[in-house]
Amino acid sequence: MAEGDEVSNKQVILRDYVSGFPEETDFELRTSGKIRLKVAQGSKSVVVKNLYLSCDPYMRNRMKNSTGSYVASFSPGSPITGNGVAKVIDSGHPNFKKGDLVWGIIGWEEYSLITEPETLFKIEHTDVPLSYYTGILGMPGMTAYAGFYEVGSPKEGEYVFISAASGAVGQLVGQFAKLKNCYVVGTAGSKEKVDLLKNKFGFDEAFNYKEEQDLDKALKRCLPDGIDIYFENVGGKMLDAVLLNMRLHGRIPVCGMISQYNLEEPEGAHNLFCLISKRVRMEGFLVFDYYPMYPKYRDMVLPLIREGKITYVEDIAEGLENAPKALIGLFSGRNIGKQVVLVARE
Amino acid sequence: MAEGDEVSNKQVILRDYVSGFPEETDFELRTSGKIRLKVAQGSKSVVVKNLYLSCDPYMRNRMKNSTGSYVASFSPGSPITGNGVAKVIDSGHPNFKKGDLVWGIIGWEEYSLITEPETLFKIEHTDVPLSYYTGILGMPGMTAYAGFYEVGSPKEGEYVFISAASGAVGQLVGQFAKLKNCYVVGTAGSKEKVDLLKNKFGFDEAFNYKEEQDLDKALKRCLPDGIDIYFENVGGKMLDAVLLNMRLHGRIPVCGMISQYNLEEPEGAHNLFCLISKRVRMEGFLVFDYYPMYPKYRDMVLPLIREGKITYVEDIAEGLENAPKALIGLFSGRNIGKQVVLVARE
Repeated sequence: MAEGDEVSNKQVILRDYVSGFPEETDFELRTSGKIRLKVAQGSKSVVVKNLYLSCDPYMRNRMKNSTGSYVASFSPGSPITGNGVAKVIDSGHPNFKKGDLVWGIIGWEEYSLITEPETLFKIEHTDVPLSYYTGILGMPGMTAYAGFYEVGSPKEGEYVFISAASGAVGQLVGQFAKLKNCYVVGTAGSKEKVDLLKNKFGFDEAFNYKEEQDLDKALKRCLPDGIDIYFENVGGKMLDAVLLNMRLHGRIPVCGMISQYNLEEPEGAHNLFCLISKRVRMEGFLVFDYYPMYPKYRDMVLPLIREGKITYVEDIAEGLENAPKALIGLFSGRNIGKQVVLVARE
Repeated sequence: MAEGDEVSNKQVILRDYVSGFPEETDFELRTSGKIRLKVAQGSKSVVVKNLYLSCDPYMRNRMKNSTGSYVASFSPGSPITGNGVAKVIDSGHPNFKKGDLVWGIIGWEEYSLITEPETLFKIEHTDVPLSYYTGILGMPGMTAYAGFYEVGSPKEGEYVFISAASGAVGQLVGQFAKLKNCYVVGTAGSKEKVDLLKNKFGFDEAFNYKEEQDLDKALKRCLPDGIDIYFENVGGKMLDAVLLNMRLHGRIPVCGMISQYNLEEPEGAHNLFCLISKRVRMEGFLVFDYYPMYPKYRDMVLPLIREGKITYVEDIAEGLENAPKALIGLFSGRNIGKQVVLVARE
């Protein structure tokens, strides 16, 4: 096949805006798409072949018809986009050449035309799994790093609690906290995940929130001296229980509130008065603001991966046709570890 | 009368713990109290004559039977305590002598025996009204200073919004913000207070929250470009509306949540996701942590008072017998400005 020819390009399409829990039927696998694998003369675009797609909770908000969010809504009828790993097939941009591996925002499709390739990060280290660039070496890794170190301001020996702790971000925050000699407790939604926290990621303690009648009691059992840093991924009832257990001058980096994303009306946080009595700082953050620190993070974490001092669990779905199911599985907690979709092997 | 003799000591007693709105009948004026106006030989205590009492919203939490708060509950059957201005009558402490004026925690009574006088601040400047040491030159002043400058991290020209804006703290935050060239909007609960904000304290805009159907709309009308700093005094629905209107990297110093103090079950804050999308820092603080900065604050604010660059409105109730009514009036917003009780003239 000549690269200038049009080829078939399977795509995952959002049918319409979603309210409530997203379902597989909210998406369509469109097989009629076509793409030219060559950039136009004079264009600074690149064409990439997509290898891995990242399924991330924030994408739920893009399925809503909202204007107030920090990322634009998806366009119904068009392929959705997200973080992923891809290989450059053709480039009009001086920074990229054919064969380069990149990570960044790509389409949920076999091939993507990237019109602003400056947003892509070039992958320079391939002695680790390429899929890691959707996770520990990509956006979630940078999220854990920025949220824990920059927003959380951790000190040696502090008490750290993490929700959605076995997820793409949580498993890293826990391991970073252990490297900082913190006492680390996590919560997740199944026995299997709790085992992972304790036996694979080295958390000091963990509990299955679905089996606790009283989250406040569970926290008091696992963290009788309270919480210095709560890495917030879920919101809702867990946040309310945590607020009752914060220590003086505690910090709550607010990374996400996945328990709230499918609700028409978010649950309220009722215990915010604890922010005052315990002088707690609660701070939302977005990874985009910290991307300039990415090289520093990558250079810190790569040796830790190579030396086995940090581990990363992925849940890899095979094939673009299974991507919608993988994505919506995030919201019922079906995934074990970072949810990735393998689109194509290099 | 010899100072060693016992004298009568009228006291305001909390009858029992309070749930819901406090009422005058929750208090009793006890006229049977007695006190010796001389400290015991060898004691480091001081005996003071109380001149002014400060009525502060945080005292509501001390009327509850709670162990988790940052200040101890009042003891039913005993006189309540709070900030106030007093004159030393006798002293066993080397730092204080008869005739000294002080401010700090005293009893709601005519005379108090202070067993830990180290907690008192000595009043060195008396060319301003003494009652100011319950307000602009006391705990509320220091609260406004710490919350706005230290927690709020204001920048020139930012958009500042203040709830309970004509109160003891709010009126100062607004004036500090104007001195910092911010655009300042406040909300309060009556036309009279709103007029005060605009005409006396120099706020750029103000609204009566009780007359607004939709707080979000009121904020968008007064602050169409959003809010950089929200000085939080009230909690509840106002906080939820504010969260929708925060600007990128906004700050919310959380000083109080007076709208919630009389509720058995606090209202929830439903819009916390905005902390993430707008990267907002919400931080609770207590003035106690900042008391070491008091001399710095006092030396900053005294010239501003003397030069008329800052003004302070007080609502002074006369007589200990009117103290309970003054205190509970805070929770219905009956006071105009800082609520003080005059116990005795010097």
